[in-house]
Amino acid sequence: METKPKPRVLSGMRPTGALHLGHLTGALDNWVRLQDAYDCFYSVVDYHALTTEYEDPSAIRKNVIEVTLDWLAAGIDPAKSRVFIQSLVPEHAELHLLLSMTTPVSWLERVPTYKDVQANMAHRDLATYGFLGYPLLQTADIIIYKANAVPVGEDQAPHIEISREIVRRFNNFYGEVFPEPQTLLTPVPRTPGTDGRKMSKSYGNAIYLKDTDAEIRSKLKTMVTDPARQRKTDKGDPAKCPVFDLHKAFSTQETRDWATAGCTSASIGCIECKSKLADHVTARIAPMREKREYLAARPDTVMDVLKTGSASARAVAQDTMHEVHRAMKIEY
Amino acid sequence: METKPKPRVLSGMRPTGALHLGHLTGALDNWVRLQDAYDCFYSVVDYHALTTEYEDPSAIRKNVIEVTLDWLAAGIDPAKSRVFIQSLVPEHAELHLLLSMTTPVSWLERVPTYKDVQANMAHRDLATYGFLGYPLLQTADIIIYKANAVPVGEDQAPHIEISREIVRRFNNFYGEVFPEPQTLLTPVPRTPGTDGRKMSKSYGNAIYLKDTDAEIRSKLKTMVTDPARQRKTDKGDPAKCPVFDLHKAFSTQETRDWATAGCTSASIGCIECKSKLADHVTARIAPMREKREYLAARPDTVMDVLKTGSASARAVAQDTMHEVHRAMKIEY
Repeated sequence: METKPKPRVLSGMRPTGALHLGHLTGALDNWVRLQDAYDCFYSVVDYHALTTEYEDPSAIRKNVIEVTLDWLAAGIDPAKSRVFIQSLVPEHAELHLLLSMTTPVSWLERVPTYKDVQANMAHRDLATYGFLGYPLLQTADIIIYKANAVPVGEDQAPHIEISREIVRRFNNFYGEVFPEPQTLLTPVPRTPGTDGRKMSKSYGNAIYLKDTDAEIRSKLKTMVTDPARQRKTDKGDPAKCPVFDLHKAFSTQETRDWATAGCTSASIGCIECKSKLADHVTARIAPMREKREYLAARPDTVMDVLKTGSASARAVAQDTMHEVHRAMKIEY
Repeated sequence: METKPKPRVLSGMRPTGALHLGHLTGALDNWVRLQDAYDCFYSVVDYHALTTEYEDPSAIRKNVIEVTLDWLAAGIDPAKSRVFIQSLVPEHAELHLLLSMTTPVSWLERVPTYKDVQANMAHRDLATYGFLGYPLLQTADIIIYKANAVPVGEDQAPHIEISREIVRRFNNFYGEVFPEPQTLLTPVPRTPGTDGRKMSKSYGNAIYLKDTDAEIRSKLKTMVTDPARQRKTDKGDPAKCPVFDLHKAFSTQETRDWATAGCTSASIGCIECKSKLADHVTARIAPMREKREYLAARPDTVMDVLKTGSASARAVAQDTMHEVHRAMKIEY
């Protein structure tokens, strides 16, 4: 009996440095789960990093390793998934160029995040041709592997929509070369940082996957709680408490019930509640950190994983590019 | 004694089809001359063809061969120069992507020919990201070989100026990787077509390098002359006669003197003057056509020249890209 090939998934992260709990709950946990049902391509997108970090790319190489360490520690398995560096598959750049021929500038200017990111990073000069072409490069990243699905949070859905438009226009001119990638909407649990805002490296409120137990406990101890609960005798509302958001992501049902009962009746204090959360978070993170430390001491092994994965991804990309050349009549 | 390496020249043509006398006098004659003093890279730029021909690229492959036949017939020598197809060196596309990171969109919008060509080709939709990026790709074409000089006519000089700006900005961020390409201004003799306008395929006024002697004679017979010379008894002014422009490009000094004397004294007629011009043009073109026919009957040989040249150019391009990766800190 013939086995049907698994559908393909492509996802990527920029090499921004060590990852935090938000990356784990928002992406990595899902990526790990997808590995059985899908043929997964996970890429550290260093070309994309250059769209904003071009003035000083000195951290990119180190950050590629950091991100990969966290992926592997979180359970991304190179025996199941292709883990690779975008620039080690330069065919992404060629497909980006070829897609540029048929893609209207206005489509790129219209992407909602285009103006947003420029405004948010006003200290950087992002009025570059490369930054404008970001969604085109992202499209190339996806379709060069003929990925069927891209796991994204709701905020990233417009990027996949433009990829679908770019694919439709390409296929319209040159024949059905690429499948239209589908969004695989990932429910992203709210993962606030210690100040209650979205967890983010740039906010300085993040708990990292490489943090020690002591660091995790100390960070959680300072975390903001339901602002209405000023004294231990005030009753609290878990729905308004960032600490409870983390309980939902990391604690057991039993602990959540205990925290809800104790908070709403004022029978436990916030310190106690956070300490229990820290038990669960550290229990989850400790084995990952251990694996991370093991691998961090073996940088050659990590680079070897990336090079092997990149060569394997590149073979797929090259097959696609042969098809593209044939379809666009530049085959010799 | 150590020999200094020859300076490098890069030039290219789009695969538009068979070439005409205007290409010969405006570019090819010069390219042939440059082969001894320079290390020459001559590229058929098929990626560039896609910026305007993306809706129907079906003629590109055939036109790549046509252009190459004319080059070889005109004296471009693959033993001296690297004759290659742009898309067989996909590193051009990667450098285009990397240059895009540092290049302001406004620089590209400002290139004089950007709006001009869009207006001249109003029947094509050229509001694409690829068309906007044209000068960036052209820059990549030049600097990936660290070309010192680019032979251009005066109208192309602004393109080289923007390449120099792009190089300066790149070198400013990442160190002195690329030399600033210099313009090698080529005096382009006026080469009118049979209707007196600039010779151009799109005007239908061209004499092709592959035209037979009979075709050349017949086309020249219909060529417009000094409009003031209505009758053979009217005295003419060679300075106002398109036929005399071709005499300047193709005839001997002796013939030019004869034509000038005969025209200004009305002692020869235009038919006689054109017939003498046809003698010189056919004498020049006949051996080229013979060589062209010989090669056209051996398409595998021509493709072999292009593939060998492309492999040789690619080796140089890959060396440059290693340097670029190192400079931009994306080396693994």
